[in-house]
Amino acid sequence: MDKIQEQEYLAFAREIMRRAGAIANRYFRRPIPIDSKAAGAGFDPVTAADREIEAFLRGEIAAKYPDHAILGEEQAERAGSSGWRWVIDPIDGTRAFISGSPLWGILLGLMQGDNCMLGLMYQPYLQETFYGSSAGAFLEKGQEIRPLATRATRDLDTATLYCTHPSMFADEQEYRRFMNVADRCRLMRYGGDCYAYCLLAGGYIDLVIEHVGGPYDIVPLIPIIEAAGGLVTDWQGNAAIAGGKILAAANQVVHEQALSILNA
Amino acid sequence: MDKIQEQEYLAFAREIMRRAGAIANRYFRRPIPIDSKAAGAGFDPVTAADREIEAFLRGEIAAKYPDHAILGEEQAERAGSSGWRWVIDPIDGTRAFISGSPLWGILLGLMQGDNCMLGLMYQPYLQETFYGSSAGAFLEKGQEIRPLATRATRDLDTATLYCTHPSMFADEQEYRRFMNVADRCRLMRYGGDCYAYCLLAGGYIDLVIEHVGGPYDIVPLIPIIEAAGGLVTDWQGNAAIAGGKILAAANQVVHEQALSILNA
Repeated sequence: MDKIQEQEYLAFAREIMRRAGAIANRYFRRPIPIDSKAAGAGFDPVTAADREIEAFLRGEIAAKYPDHAILGEEQAERAGSSGWRWVIDPIDGTRAFISGSPLWGILLGLMQGDNCMLGLMYQPYLQETFYGSSAGAFLEKGQEIRPLATRATRDLDTATLYCTHPSMFADEQEYRRFMNVADRCRLMRYGGDCYAYCLLAGGYIDLVIEHVGGPYDIVPLIPIIEAAGGLVTDWQGNAAIAGGKILAAANQVVHEQALSILNA
Repeated sequence: MDKIQEQEYLAFAREIMRRAGAIANRYFRRPIPIDSKAAGAGFDPVTAADREIEAFLRGEIAAKYPDHAILGEEQAERAGSSGWRWVIDPIDGTRAFISGSPLWGILLGLMQGDNCMLGLMYQPYLQETFYGSSAGAFLEKGQEIRPLATRATRDLDTATLYCTHPSMFADEQEYRRFMNVADRCRLMRYGGDCYAYCLLAGGYIDLVIEHVGGPYDIVPLIPIIEAAGGLVTDWQGNAAIAGGKILAAANQVVHEQALSILNA
């Protein structure tokens, strides 16, 4: 897309994210009814905050760009005719959100066909916005905006790996493949959801390896990581836009090392 | 101790913690050399930030209260003659700190004999201070101070359990005892270090079950949790001031349930 259009979409996205964050902050660390989307005995929480934020973002996008498609976690997809598609995760990290932990975020991405053109992660309690586009990746906090760059770690034995939770993995074999990489890293930590991908974009960690639910969990993060110098693929090294098994890496070297161990 | 003395110690502690936080913020999310304290191939990180903060707090305490003892994570114990002992963890959650995650904190506690009289957890990036004493437990953020209270969860099947990382546990059997409780809870998440105990004091989660290193990891958190209505013991239900295996609970009911399963 041309630069002027990109800047218009990004400015619009930042403005509606700011207002979505105000909704989230009204609910965060306050008593809130929690429903579970999981069948049977599982627990897949969703709250009024998730639903209200997604409805707000959908309404704003549909009013401003009526021919754009919208894909969100909590509602059915809205079709479009323009080739543009917005991707929303109203609260990525609902389990952290309902635990009072600030490591969750509101995600908003924009695709043109299969390309992730721009993406934002807003953490309204910390007042941090991580965002990326062809113009670069940035962290805005208060009045300060600074560029993001991944780090140049050259070997897994000095690398830090994050993953939200071991229960993400589909089965024991998938978990073992993850642990084979973890065992080679200097440090592995659980927790983080979208925040871990932003730590990677910021140059603080080197790898995120997960199995996520859908496009909304990863599409908005891809432009942030790529514009900061990192890579996001599936466990085969292919495009990650469908979600599923994700390998995000600070650079090509650690990406190749991790990919090789995942598939050894 | 009398209330006037308690208020004096608390005011002193808050002031030196504020200045210690400024040291931490100078290092956080900036390139920093990382040493490992672990023998062999393990990784037990310590940074200049840990050392500088502990040296600063020790210096301030020794100057103001020369007859108080001081126990910190990074230096040898300083003896005292007064029965008072300050307990310091300069950065609890060094692994989070070096990963750019804000879920770490500076811990400072004050004991009289074996009693934990007051305790503080300061997270300087979030500008949050959780503190507790006989006057109650509070969260100070910016200009706002609000009381903390644990929640009244009545059964593990609606409880949330936190633990920093599964590698904390000494062996497979200890991990299994932890997982027996986790399997009974609605939600278990890893990550958090000291921050998880403060989430418990704030009424957002119900249990923290861990195996921590020493007194500095837990003593400063005990007055916060107890003044908020919670309990902190070891896995036998005894005093937790030595560190080791910790069971922190929002109330007596979930404490008893967890204790019973840990020892089943």
